Amino acid sequence: MSAAMIPAPDSMVTTQAMAQAAKLASRRLASLDEATRNAALEAIAVALEAASAELLAANAEDVRAAELRSAAERLAPATMARLMLNAAKLREMVEQVRAVALLPDPLGRTLDAVELDDKDAAGTTSAEHGLYLQKISVPLGVLAAIFEARPDAVTQIAALALKSGNAVILKPGSEVERTATVLVRVLREALAQQHLPQDAITLVTGRERVLELLGAHDCIDMIIPRGSKALVEFVQANTRIPVLGHAEGVCHIYVDRAADEDLALRVIDDAKTDYPAACNAAETVLVHREIAAEFLPKLAERLRAHGVVLHGDATVRQLLRDVPVAAVDDWHTEYGELAVSIGVVASLDAAIEHIHAHGSLHTESILTEDAFAAAKFLREVDAAGVMHNASTRLADGFRYGFGAEVGISTSKFHARGPVGLDGLTTYKYIVRGHGHIAGDYHGANARTFTHRRGAR
Amino acid sequence: MSAAMIPAPDSMVTTQAMAQAAKLASRRLASLDEATRNAALEAIAVALEAASAELLAANAEDVRAAELRSAAERLAPATMARLMLNAAKLREMVEQVRAVALLPDPLGRTLDAVELDDKDAAGTTSAEHGLYLQKISVPLGVLAAIFEARPDAVTQIAALALKSGNAVILKPGSEVERTATVLVRVLREALAQQHLPQDAITLVTGRERVLELLGAHDCIDMIIPRGSKALVEFVQANTRIPVLGHAEGVCHIYVDRAADEDLALRVIDDAKTDYPAACNAAETVLVHREIAAEFLPKLAERLRAHGVVLHGDATVRQLLRDVPVAAVDDWHTEYGELAVSIGVVASLDAAIEHIHAHGSLHTESILTEDAFAAAKFLREVDAAGVMHNASTRLADGFRYGFGAEVGISTSKFHARGPVGLDGLTTYKYIVRGHGHIAGDYHGANARTFTHRRGAR
Repeated sequence: MSAAMIPAPDSMVTTQAMAQAAKLASRRLASLDEATRNAALEAIAVALEAASAELLAANAEDVRAAELRSAAERLAPATMARLMLNAAKLREMVEQVRAVALLPDPLGRTLDAVELDDKDAAGTTSAEHGLYLQKISVPLGVLAAIFEARPDAVTQIAALALKSGNAVILKPGSEVERTATVLVRVLREALAQQHLPQDAITLVTGRERVLELLGAHDCIDMIIPRGSKALVEFVQANTRIPVLGHAEGVCHIYVDRAADEDLALRVIDDAKTDYPAACNAAETVLVHREIAAEFLPKLAERLRAHGVVLHGDATVRQLLRDVPVAAVDDWHTEYGELAVSIGVVASLDAAIEHIHAHGSLHTESILTEDAFAAAKFLREVDAAGVMHNASTRLADGFRYGFGAEVGISTSKFHARGPVGLDGLTTYKYIVRGHGHIAGDYHGANARTFTHRRGAR
Repeated sequence: MSAAMIPAPDSMVTTQAMAQAAKLASRRLASLDEATRNAALEAIAVALEAASAELLAANAEDVRAAELRSAAERLAPATMARLMLNAAKLREMVEQVRAVALLPDPLGRTLDAVELDDKDAAGTTSAEHGLYLQKISVPLGVLAAIFEARPDAVTQIAALALKSGNAVILKPGSEVERTATVLVRVLREALAQQHLPQDAITLVTGRERVLELLGAHDCIDMIIPRGSKALVEFVQANTRIPVLGHAEGVCHIYVDRAADEDLALRVIDDAKTDYPAACNAAETVLVHREIAAEFLPKLAERLRAHGVVLHGDATVRQLLRDVPVAAVDDWHTEYGELAVSIGVVASLDAAIEHIHAHGSLHTESILTEDAFAAAKFLREVDAAGVMHNASTRLADGFRYGFGAEVGISTSKFHARGPVGLDGLTTYKYIVRGHGHIAGDYHGANARTFTHRRGAR
């Protein structure tokens, strides 16, 4: 048996065993203070810099393998661009790790504090020996990230996990496996050098591992899928573990009859063309019928000047030339490119109904000078983000000031909208007493709780 | 066909159609102000009082049917007691509804506020025309509660849902169907009288509906199972919808070598005997080996005086007489009655390991006068609640001052520990701009965000 045929070490370990090792490591991580976690991040940054030649070599192999694929399996140019590392991109990855170290600590924050009783167990007033409740932020435990051809996803997710005291299991796309293998080895060596458990960062490879990860709900606390809609939907449909993310962003802009036309053109242009591949780009523009005849030709001119293809409903196609019909599916479509669906609606209520019927609970914006219409839209539209006279492209963790963005969630559970480091934490309740028992607070001669917020 | 053979109206409507109607109703509810929601709760309280004769008659039928069951299917005495309504219990249910109305509004709270930019779209400083982010609490949408033989669960869950702007679908146990049917009819009539959508509260009956509810993840935002461990586990294993609750509470008390003996006896006694059926009752006591010989006989005497059956490991059985062996399963057992597993551990670390191996992430308590041991335990134990020198029985939404308790969650996602009305809400981000676009904040001449917290 030649050396090349010896299976990689990870393939000899079951996914369940790796997840259990990650769980054990996560318990160590949860106890580390902020300085230790930040020192580990700095050690990782230094180790990545030292390993740059090796990383670029491994990446070159990934790139060569991708280039040798048959025409049918060839990666899209955008995917190739994301896959490829160079010195500048590596520097950026290292900078990102150091930037995560500088973020405020998401752990150990006091989220609530309540004095339950200012008396000791015997009933004598004593601030020193009372009963106190504290709610503090703690790590989730073990994260599993399933992503595609992005080397930078490895370092970014690992850094966010470490900063928030979580262990992480990384399952990269097969295209980036060689790069990811070296990256994770470097990260684990840096952890070991800091006397931290290497199993805080684990790589798994191989498609068959995905279902095993999704089934490990006794060890894994959150799944973060990063990639296509198909990947996210597959993950959501095949696991009981909570999933952080969104399958799609079908964002709407509603142009009310009381919209400022110049503002509307400017905002729609940005929302569609600033970065069409982003999940917060607008996919559908709804226009109030009272202004449709006046506004639509201007909108078409503005968008077409940027090469945007318009799809319209019957009314739009009467008002504009050369607009293909918007098929039923188009209202559900995240184009991700320079294309947009345009519809005419009879009222604000009709616009809200359309959004609820076709939207993805991501980000929706109303353009109007009518304060009542704006307030109604902001109140009634059920989405992670609702906006007034602003571009949907602004929905982003960095723009919102969260420092880092773990992802954007369209779930209503746990974290919704752009998710910062807080999204990787949960909390626990700490009760400090001096022999306090429940029996003293019910029945005859029941003592009463003081329930003073903010005390101690 | 006799009148008795006409199927109940709900059996002609599909579960999916009911869930969709609930979703529509939930959109109306989400827009209601606090006064309107509270007025509806008061209308419900009045309607329940007016319907008391009818309710007691329906309940008497449920009770009679239960009494006529064969010996094999007979309900346990505790279940019978919960099933049975009387005038006093009905008054309590009405009081509970009015108490929910008095709770602080969980909706529309500003959870965060950030000034993103203090300049208008053109770049001129203008507090009036800047860009602002707000994070506010909103309802989840549609809740589905699956519970057993409790008439009071109907009114309690419906009241909590209405207060928090959520629609709710109620699936009661078959034993309480007649009572629940009248209850829900009264609640829906009260809603209609207040010009609110009746579908805000929906009853479904029939075992086959449960799986249909669990599959309706496009309409239902949260499932609340209330009942046996088997029920909760079935729900968790068969739905993609987030589940609020816990399958079991295997709570531990660790008696450290530096424990105050009197305090320990008092706390363990309360944690085990105050209400053994509660999920926050202690099931396992772990004793440090250095004090075992001294402490265990006193503990046995105290607990046996209250009729508690002890199960012990080998060391315990050497030190105490007449203790049956604690089988492997016992360490995982929620007795729910006057029984307790007792083990001797070599160290604080061993106690923490035991808790992580056998606990249910519910509530764990350390009894010690050693501040370092306490701090380590509170930091390292991964559970919804960790306590020092206090009884696990104190883990409770009312005792924590949350006003209402929706349930206790052992999930790390969304809400953990005792869950108040906040657990029935999510949030949305509101962005208010004046034509602000993302393109102005990147590239050449990029404007910068101000990210001032708490502004506006």
